[in-house]
Amino acid sequence: MALRTLSAKNAAALDQELMSSGAFSIDQLMELAGLSVSQAVYKLQPPSRGRRILVACGPGNNGGDGLVAARHLWHYGYQPTMYYPKQSKKELYQRLTKQLQDLQIPFTTDFPTALQNADHVVDAIFGFSFSGEVREPFPQVIEALRDTKVPVLAVDAPSSWNIETGPPEDGPGKGFQPGALVSLTAPKPLVKWFRGRHFVGGRFLTKEVAKKYGLDMPPYEGVDQIVEVPAQGEGRL
Amino acid sequence: MALRTLSAKNAAALDQELMSSGAFSIDQLMELAGLSVSQAVYKLQPPSRGRRILVACGPGNNGGDGLVAARHLWHYGYQPTMYYPKQSKKELYQRLTKQLQDLQIPFTTDFPTALQNADHVVDAIFGFSFSGEVREPFPQVIEALRDTKVPVLAVDAPSSWNIETGPPEDGPGKGFQPGALVSLTAPKPLVKWFRGRHFVGGRFLTKEVAKKYGLDMPPYEGVDQIVEVPAQGEGRL
Repeated sequence: MALRTLSAKNAAALDQELMSSGAFSIDQLMELAGLSVSQAVYKLQPPSRGRRILVACGPGNNGGDGLVAARHLWHYGYQPTMYYPKQSKKELYQRLTKQLQDLQIPFTTDFPTALQNADHVVDAIFGFSFSGEVREPFPQVIEALRDTKVPVLAVDAPSSWNIETGPPEDGPGKGFQPGALVSLTAPKPLVKWFRGRHFVGGRFLTKEVAKKYGLDMPPYEGVDQIVEVPAQGEGRL
Repeated sequence: MALRTLSAKNAAALDQELMSSGAFSIDQLMELAGLSVSQAVYKLQPPSRGRRILVACGPGNNGGDGLVAARHLWHYGYQPTMYYPKQSKKELYQRLTKQLQDLQIPFTTDFPTALQNADHVVDAIFGFSFSGEVREPFPQVIEALRDTKVPVLAVDAPSSWNIETGPPEDGPGKGFQPGALVSLTAPKPLVKWFRGRHFVGGRFLTKEVAKKYGLDMPPYEGVDQIVEVPAQGEGRL
């Protein structure tokens, strides 16, 4: 049973609804989203199999999820390294960044070297509000993620993929197929083209909102903030 | 090995430090604190052993932790009921309350009946800033918690206990000894008189802050937000 998907437009509307009538703050939602991402990393790569996690963060909310995830990864015993070249001026992002600095988590500007020294990468560059244009300095980063043998976990979307139509037909993301994806709140239509391991996270959906947006309540277990679901891609592995 | 404790004064200072130089928002900290409380409930009472959780919330931050915990408990498959007679006017608490209302979680004003129908109770009435005075309508509530056979999990402190000197020598809390306690961030000195199961939660302490306040980093495992530690009370069970 494939989970129903959430379009980019509806994902934005749902986020707005959670933060207005739903009464969530962005701090809360981002904390829970980033926590979900960190738990997906733990499932894919327990610390005993390599602790060096490179977290690549974009300038928006997807990057914010990466910042939160990195903090939790540190608490789980990982050694995160941040690549966050376009730092947001927004107060929340500055605070999330400060929280990482206080844990002595290093920030790098040299993505290729950091990638060589990583056991796993988190792609938190672009999420459901990606516009279709990969701006500097991210084209080379996405090419490196496409070509690396280091396992990649994408947050909400493989960066550069179109949310509705999936893998781009040209540009740096052509051929980029990460090994794992964690969809936040609900899978986006792009999962149809995704062939790796697939997790859903963000355990805060109400039944009413799920119904309104035509979504399934994911089959979470115990206190887990994520659940692995069957690959929905046509060419599933 | 007993974990080192945090005085009421230092607990307040540490909270302030996390929210100023530590750059945490109260939304974030309360989300993580409440998440810890919910995980302690899950350890004590998995849903298969009874889903009806009564969450008694006081007017301050301890109550806020209870509000967050109740939301997570709902997502784990519990049926929480709220007793929250002195609702804070602060925006954060109003939002946390709205989040519960959106899940159709009932709020009751009849504590004795709710207690009779509960499988487990969370005492989130008073925490480390308790002043020593149990105001209405809480004296009867604390007496009921003292006398009930329903298992009680206290958040940070058994309500009415003095943070430094433990069980009160008179008043409604005399003889109140809950079956379990979850200490947030670090145990408070009162744990010396506590004889039940003891958890520590709130996985956000930096090594620097722990050092400054003379605290231990609790031995968390995996992605857990809580860890059970040996009872520190003199008359431990």
